[in-house]
This record gives sequence, C-alpha cells and structure tokens, in this order.
Amino acid sequence: MVSTRVADLHGSPVRAMLAAAQQPGVISFAGGLPAPDSFADLNFPPPPTDMLQYGPTEGEPALRAALAAELASIGLDCPAERILVLTGSQQGIDLVAKLMVDAGTPVAVEAPAYLAALQVFRFFGARLQILDRAVPLAGASPRPALAYVTPTFQNPSGHCWTAAERGALAAACDAGDTVLFEDDPYRDLVYDPCERTPVCARLTRASWIYQGSFSKTMAPGLRLGFLAASADLFPHLVNLKQAADLHSNRLSQFYALNYLSDPDRPRRLRDLVARYRHRRDRFAESLQRHFADLADWTVPAGGLFFWATLKSGADTAVLLDRARGENVLFTPGEHFLDASRRPCASLRLNFSHAEEAAADRGLEILARLVRQAAI
Amino acid sequence: MVSTRVADLHGSPVRAMLAAAQQPGVISFAGGLPAPDSFADLNFPPPPTDMLQYGPTEGEPALRAALAAELASIGLDCPAERILVLTGSQQGIDLVAKLMVDAGTPVAVEAPAYLAALQVFRFFGARLQILDRAVPLAGASPRPALAYVTPTFQNPSGHCWTAAERGALAAACDAGDTVLFEDDPYRDLVYDPCERTPVCARLTRASWIYQGSFSKTMAPGLRLGFLAASADLFPHLVNLKQAADLHSNRLSQFYALNYLSDPDRPRRLRDLVARYRHRRDRFAESLQRHFADLADWTVPAGGLFFWATLKSGADTAVLLDRARGENVLFTPGEHFLDASRRPCASLRLNFSHAEEAAADRGLEILARLVRQAAI
Repeated sequence: MVSTRVADLHGSPVRAMLAAAQQPGVISFAGGLPAPDSFADLNFPPPPTDMLQYGPTEGEPALRAALAAELASIGLDCPAERILVLTGSQQGIDLVAKLMVDAGTPVAVEAPAYLAALQVFRFFGARLQILDRAVPLAGASPRPALAYVTPTFQNPSGHCWTAAERGALAAACDAGDTVLFEDDPYRDLVYDPCERTPVCARLTRASWIYQGSFSKTMAPGLRLGFLAASADLFPHLVNLKQAADLHSNRLSQFYALNYLSDPDRPRRLRDLVARYRHRRDRFAESLQRHFADLADWTVPAGGLFFWATLKSGADTAVLLDRARGENVLFTPGEHFLDASRRPCASLRLNFSHAEEAAADRGLEILARLVRQAAI
Repeated sequence: MVSTRVADLHGSPVRAMLAAAQQPGVISFAGGLPAPDSFADLNFPPPPTDMLQYGPTEGEPALRAALAAELASIGLDCPAERILVLTGSQQGIDLVAKLMVDAGTPVAVEAPAYLAALQVFRFFGARLQILDRAVPLAGASPRPALAYVTPTFQNPSGHCWTAAERGALAAACDAGDTVLFEDDPYRDLVYDPCERTPVCARLTRASWIYQGSFSKTMAPGLRLGFLAASADLFPHLVNLKQAADLHSNRLSQFYALNYLSDPDRPRRLRDLVARYRHRRDRFAESLQRHFADLADWTVPAGGLFFWATLKSGADTAVLLDRARGENVLFTPGEHFLDASRRPCASLRLNFSHAEEAAADRGLEILARLVRQAAI
C-alpha cells in the first residue's frame, strides 16, 4: 500500500540513540552532540514581530548576504542570490536527492560516509558507488551523476582531504560532468592546521552544491543550515525547498544573523575550539590508555569524532549490544557503510559531548567488554 | 541530468507573490497571511538552554501530550505517542507523499485544492483524480490509494463539509481501503456555526493522517505544525521526518507549548476570530458593492479566503497581469486546479491580511479592470 521507496526505509540508529543518549547516567559517544555548556553564552532576545509572519523561501536577505560574505572569506565566491537557507543541513541532503536521484542513478559516496545521507540517497533509489580519495571517480561505470563528500573532518572518519586530494576530486568532477555535493558542517571545529578550502571553489566547469550548518558551532536545536549552488541548479533547489516546508524558521534565522554579526563571535569560536581541542586530546589519551592493544585509530585534526577499528576484526554491533547494558553508547561502523560491508569492526566515537572523566570511564568499560568477550 | 521528477517542477506562484505582497503600497489578496497585528500579544521569553541541543524526531514530549489533549477535545482520539511535530504542515504533505506516492499512484483531491499539495503530489508522480463531495470516491478507477482533503474551511473554496459529506467520505475510505489525509489548518478560524469534527474521527477501518498547524492562529514564521496518524503509518512517517530534517525547531516547539498552555489563549483566539469575522463581513460588503454584477461567490463560514468566479468566464490569470500594474494581487484559480481546467474564471481572495479600507480599494480596482477590459 505504501510507496515502493518506503519498503526499504528503516529508522535511523542515530535517532534511537539520541533519545537514549540524553538519559541520566548514560555515557554517550553515539551522537554528534555539541557540549551542552557551549550554549551558555548565546543570546535570544525577543524577535521582531515581522519575523513571525511568512517569509521568503530563499531565507532572510540579510542572513543570505552575511553567508555569502562568509563563503567569500573561505574562498568560495557565490552571490547572496544563490544562497538558500535550510531547515538544517539534513534538509539539503533531501533536496539534493530530490533534485538529482532517480531509481538507479549512480551516486559516489565515501566509505565510510554520513549515515543519514546514505539513507536518503538509498530512499530515492540511488545506486551507491564507493569514491576512492586516491583516484576519485576513476573508472566508475556508469559515470556517477553526483558525488557526495564531506572533505573537511568527515563524519565519521575525521579525515581532512589534502590539497592534492581536493584538486583531484574537482578535476574528476569537471572532466566527467559529475555534480559535486560538498557537505561542510565541521569546518570551523579545527584543532590542527590543515587544508580547508572548499573543493567546490576549485571547480571550473562542473555543477555544484556546497552546504554548511549552524548546528555545530551555534545550536542544533535551531535546525538551521544553508546551501550555495551553481546557477543551473539553484532555482530547482528553491522550488524543492518551497515544496518541502515553504521557508526556514524565521526566529532561527534572526538569531543566526545576530550570531554571525556579533563582534564577540571570533572569541566565542576560539573558546569553543580550544575546549573541543582539549577534549580531543584527553580522549586520545584515554583511547591510548585503554585501547592501545585493541584498536587502531587516527587522531582527527578537527570535527567531533574518532573512528577506531578493532584489531580483532570483531563486529561492533555486537559490542554495542553489550555496552548498552553498561550504559555506554557509540555508533557501530556498519551504519556508515554499504550493507555488503557487514559485519564491521569499526566504531565511531564522539568526543565533544561526554565530560572528560565520564569519557575515560566509558572507554574503560568498552575496552573491558572487548577483552572479556574476546570481541 | 537532474531527476525526472524535477523536469516538471515549477516555482510556486504563491512564493513569488508572497515576496511581492510585502512591498509597501501593494494591496494583496494573494497569500494566506495572518493579520500582522495578530502577533502583537505573543510572548517570546528566552528559551531554556536544553532546547538548543538536538532533540527527538517525534517532537517534545510535553508538546505532543498537549496536542493529543487538543485532538481529544475535538473528537479525535490519538495517543501522544502517535503525534509527530512538523516543520509546518507543508512538511506533512511532503512526508505523506513520500510515504504513499509512487509514479502513477492514484490520489484523489478536491477541485479546487490547495495548490502546494497538488504540486507535491505531482512531483512524486501521482495520478490525480477529482474527489466529488456528493459521491466521494464513487466509481473511481483505479481506486485511489490516498484521498487528500481540507474539509474545514477549505483553501481555496472556503467550503466546510457537512456532517453528511464527512460521513460519506469516511465510509468510502473504509469501504475501499483508501488512506485518508485530512489537512486542517483553518479549523479554529470559525465565524459561523458548522460541523468541524475531523473526518478521521469517523473512520472505523481505513488508515489515516490528520494534520494541523500553528501558522494560522499563532505565527507562521515559527514553521510549526503536527500530524497524528493511524498506528500502521506512524512509524514510517517518523523515519521520513528524520530523513527530512532530523526534528523540528525546538524554540518553536517551546513557544508553541507556552501558547497552548497559556490560560489567556481562549481569550486571544476569541479576539482573533472576532477580528477576522469582522474583516470577512466588511470584505463581503465590498465584494457586494463592486462585484455584484461581475462574479459569484459564497460567504465562507471560516478560514481566510473568498473564492469568486467571474460571470463572464474570463481568464483570471490575464486579470492578474493587469492588476499587478495597479499594485493589487490575488491568486488566479488555475493554480488550484488541474492544468486541463485552464483558462479559469475563478480567483482566490484572502481577506485577513489587507486592512479594510485597502481591501475595499483593491476590490474596486479589480472590478474596474474587469469592466474596462471586458475580461
């Protein structure tokens, strides 16, 4: 009775875990939650009355102008007229999938890749192909219509693409008429110097969509993100946005504009980054303490996650079942990969949400479970 | 290069006009905008910090409980566990279309019907059928999988289905396994007594989705609505919501809960209804003054619109082109109908937004244009 697409739709494990993660006593490495104390110095004055009325689908003009200026400052030239404010960057994925994906459309994705993007592309019928950073899109057949990447502090791997990798991907998209969809929510959470110029800025020919988020540095409860796109795609995306929810929440847009224009923002962001860098470093120490003989990982230069792989090759979905019983949560790697890659020995560990002592305790518990059960 | 669905997607005339309608000097009957002064007594205290974090996909538990109590009070029994908070009720249309509509799926709609619903159903490939209130779903072949209706103060016709019409539709859905999708954003804007019990409450067997909105009585800029659904459909809708935008804005949810639990709400709603009833009555007088010999219409018992039909049978899309030149806007009837019904002699006139003197002046201008051009 329901549409053929829905037959394959499963609930997101992230959603289920976000609910569990906020229970008292639970140590959660599962979500991508900002630290709760990071919201303390945000301001929410009463909104102007005209923000309560219906607004433009594209978003508030002043916010779009501010976002265009932000993009210019990171090397991506896009006029304000081609900025679309989103109900969170998850919405951008839905809109781009609607725009680009028919049943059978080939879409290139990283392995691993953001699970809720995989879910949406699959829902619209995409045939997913693995994108190899070393030789992007090389030999892909059929040629992917769309390449979806998170080049800067990827969720879940934490990887930041090098300048050479970025250049190669842009060249491959240009050469093959593959639309580039660059998802960039983590770029401001940078702990070590690295290349962060958007890959979209390197394109000379290919169509593109670049999106960013207010969820990681401001507040996810506002559900606000934005996209910029090449001139051929932008008008379609506006029509799709209108059909999806008319326009984004205007209170959130008002607060986001306040946030962007706050002279204190650079200081606030520096403090947030310093705090997260500290958490990352403590987390790396805890991992070293408890997991040195059990897993491999790389310390990420930014973002919110460690991606670790058990040396035993054991299934981390089984580990999660046991960890739940001890009130420790994480996200098994299988959710970030094609179903053909299961069982999966990797796991994603968020380090921004749990306090340091709790994080160390949680990792100690996980290590004990791995040892005890010889997982 | 883009998906086959997008090839047929056009921008909404409503979106274009909402932008124009807010220019100074324009008299707009085009949107469904609440009166700007209706927002004056809403309160927006600073939100609790925990509302800034990610939240549950289904919505805030306290808000869902309050909405379930609201539904019970209007005759629709649905537990809070089957309430899903939406990013405006436009999102509900997107989610239900994703749930139910494949290419070729037969969907029954009223004629005329809400244009942005027609747009979404068409986008997902629905084969639209006209639903006749007198003999709902009778003889429809193939049997519609979904019936989309706005039984209470419909947009655009203003019609409120009688008890007999509601009973017949429920019986037809029950008999034919047609899923009923009832869109009910206008129910509280009631000016004359009439039957308003949801049609969904009359079902005994068929699956259903019922949705409501905070845009018409609280504030559309919050982009907040909700749906309730039968147990078989609800889990799918939650998964689709998660894939669309993770969850709805939590500030809006916080303010909506405040609004619902405000002891002053009944007084506020009574005042709003009294003000809109007064505008409707003045608008009816202006119509009578300027259009008595030019058009036919019915005075609506609720909602935000008059639906008028030119006696000459002239095309109201042509009339709009001329009216724009005199800074008067309305929505031509063709947008609420299948393309096969064009040209269309009907027009939708919103009476809630323009002040009374401006509305009279706008109608006078329209009448003059109709006469002058012998449209």
